[in-house]
Amino acid sequence: MTVSPPTGATAHGLLAGLDEIRGVGRDARRGGYSRHAWQPAELELRDWFVERAVRQGLDVDVDRNGNIWAWWGARGDNAVVTGSHLDSVPGGGAYDGPLGVVSALDAIARLQATGFVPTRPCAILVFAEEEGSRFGIACLGSRLMTGAIDPDRARALTDSDGISLAEAVSNAGIDASSLGEDAAALARIGVFVELHVEQGRGLIDLASPVAVASSILAHGRWKLLFTGEGNHAGATRMQDRRDPMVAAARSIVEIRDAAAASEGLRATIGRIDAVPGGTNVISSTVSTWLDARAVTDAETSALVADITARVTDAAAAEGCGVVIAQESWSGSVSFDPALRDRLVGALSGTSGPSGTGGPSGTLPIPVLPTGAGHDAGVLASRVPTAMVFVRNPTGVSHSPQEFASLDDCLEGVVALERVLRDLL
Amino acid sequence: MTVSPPTGATAHGLLAGLDEIRGVGRDARRGGYSRHAWQPAELELRDWFVERAVRQGLDVDVDRNGNIWAWWGARGDNAVVTGSHLDSVPGGGAYDGPLGVVSALDAIARLQATGFVPTRPCAILVFAEEEGSRFGIACLGSRLMTGAIDPDRARALTDSDGISLAEAVSNAGIDASSLGEDAAALARIGVFVELHVEQGRGLIDLASPVAVASSILAHGRWKLLFTGEGNHAGATRMQDRRDPMVAAARSIVEIRDAAAASEGLRATIGRIDAVPGGTNVISSTVSTWLDARAVTDAETSALVADITARVTDAAAAEGCGVVIAQESWSGSVSFDPALRDRLVGALSGTSGPSGTGGPSGTLPIPVLPTGAGHDAGVLASRVPTAMVFVRNPTGVSHSPQEFASLDDCLEGVVALERVLRDLL
Repeated sequence: MTVSPPTGATAHGLLAGLDEIRGVGRDARRGGYSRHAWQPAELELRDWFVERAVRQGLDVDVDRNGNIWAWWGARGDNAVVTGSHLDSVPGGGAYDGPLGVVSALDAIARLQATGFVPTRPCAILVFAEEEGSRFGIACLGSRLMTGAIDPDRARALTDSDGISLAEAVSNAGIDASSLGEDAAALARIGVFVELHVEQGRGLIDLASPVAVASSILAHGRWKLLFTGEGNHAGATRMQDRRDPMVAAARSIVEIRDAAAASEGLRATIGRIDAVPGGTNVISSTVSTWLDARAVTDAETSALVADITARVTDAAAAEGCGVVIAQESWSGSVSFDPALRDRLVGALSGTSGPSGTGGPSGTLPIPVLPTGAGHDAGVLASRVPTAMVFVRNPTGVSHSPQEFASLDDCLEGVVALERVLRDLL
Repeated sequence: MTVSPPTGATAHGLLAGLDEIRGVGRDARRGGYSRHAWQPAELELRDWFVERAVRQGLDVDVDRNGNIWAWWGARGDNAVVTGSHLDSVPGGGAYDGPLGVVSALDAIARLQATGFVPTRPCAILVFAEEEGSRFGIACLGSRLMTGAIDPDRARALTDSDGISLAEAVSNAGIDASSLGEDAAALARIGVFVELHVEQGRGLIDLASPVAVASSILAHGRWKLLFTGEGNHAGATRMQDRRDPMVAAARSIVEIRDAAAASEGLRATIGRIDAVPGGTNVISSTVSTWLDARAVTDAETSALVADITARVTDAAAAEGCGVVIAQESWSGSVSFDPALRDRLVGALSGTSGPSGTGGPSGTLPIPVLPTGAGHDAGVLASRVPTAMVFVRNPTGVSHSPQEFASLDDCLEGVVALERVLRDLL
């Protein structure tokens, strides 16, 4: 797909929003960005979005769960809603989240500039806490809205400083007692379309700047707590040790081996915490967090069962214990087939170098699964949702190396404009 | 050895100091105590010591490197000096460090109470930053005093918050520019005797409350920085990964195996830091810190060479890199044989149930090596030093499980009193 911007729109004018927030939430230690929910950098981005939307003539409100809505025209049910999130993983890239928000602003600006008149309500939706980097559970804004998480459990979640979600949202002016399923908000969403930077290598090989999503892998998070005997690193003979660090290390290798055993499985330990954490101390406990994914729910459960058996054996072999506790679970998501086909049609209808290709054109729009979780995946259980991916030439995400070219981002904006034009 | 306290001295009166500081620096998360150099808990202990010493009639001053001296009588060179440290590992026990300080105060109090008149200067010395928990290098107070560490390097050391040692000591009122070799302080030390809780199982099997040290294992610290490719935990296929967490995990198992291969070797990873550290993120780097020890310098070097080869292979097998950097090194220490024998003689001369045993008595004083590093070991290269160990019935140290019974602590005080009486 190669689409020229309409007359008057330039790459410099579009996507200026990415430049405007380039300096917010830089992480000097990790590189990239650390913009965690309800902390100063993310709050600054929320303020920036509100100001940007108002400047564009949109009406802003914040729902019971802290998600920000920006309405183009009158509020109403059964709206066409697009958006993403502004928070990041620790040391994340510039595109995961903000690209979908900026592209939504720009796509509506393009529609506004051409005098397009929607026949349905239309809004941009910015979800609160998508990455789960602060409170451990991803997609909190959409999970709360849909009732996928009990609000009492959510309120009690704490960050690494012991601050609860209830405290964090209260400090940001949200009434913590109002968190929870929001039928009114859900009724407003007729369809939800999320544009997002691609997080794997799917579009690199296909040489396409954009794709439409087919499905999201099933995934969940588990905490693995290894217990042993803390002791002195110098005074304790090797044969007298019950070292949970060695138990955790054996387990990390087993976890990788379990996932590598079959195509399509993914298992990762990216977070580890040794207590007490001194160089000259054998740990008393080591906590690790498992991220496990597979195409189907059953495959994911089987993977975690395999991992549980391997980890239990590894801990026992070191004289250690292990407690495995599930922290979150998201079943596999198949996006609404009719909506998906409608997006493919809308995009293919204008694809090809000549702009005249059809669904059978020479450059069909790829339809790709993704291993990454999204608010669109959470919403999919309640309303028709779809996603548009923008090519990431590094194939790397959740990292400062995450990237999308200006040309590809512009292709994404134009694609989102066409989708909105078709749906509105 | 069973020694009754002299008339008037009771267990309740002695060791009250341990009770007085019981509440300082508790670590709710790890258990035990976190009293790190130049932070509030350790500063509170320093203030407590000064007040305690002054109340006992001792004259206090602080040397160029922040070590606290409390003089019994006139200051002078060639003094008999005893003491230990007040800082702890993260989540450490109540005895490692403070027992030697409290016992020194009590032993001198016992000498004062009996009207003993020293023939040599006598002081208690409390070293600053023994554990290396905050700035990564153990025994900073004694290393600086003896010139074993370059003061510019020491000043530039930073803690996990990026605060330098220079800033930390300045905030505590120490002139950072004065840190470094202190010939005047060294000249004051004729002999140094450190009483310390035993950190292994040596005294448990021997059924003795106290022992005299023979030697300290050689030991050092190395930082191992594993580098890979940070990426998305869901979107990245297992075969596309270069995950430094897996490289570190394989290495931790190899490190244990290397040390377990021969008797007397010890190698530990107790501290690990994954960057960026998110659950849904493949790490970009993982840092671990190696603590390696053996009886001789050559054995320790051979162990680290073996570990270097194993770790390099493990990282390469995961497509990762590893950089190994030595952070500290302490050669093996043999305590001064004449001083050691003099301690054994002084203690054995009064040992035995009847209090009349001699060096050939029925309950000889054990002489034990230790795997733990101490300021006494650093000083040993410059002045005659010795150590007295007090039995630890758990065999566990650097942990809240570290323990010494009141009776054994009292035996330690009485032993230190006898040693001082003999040396003074």
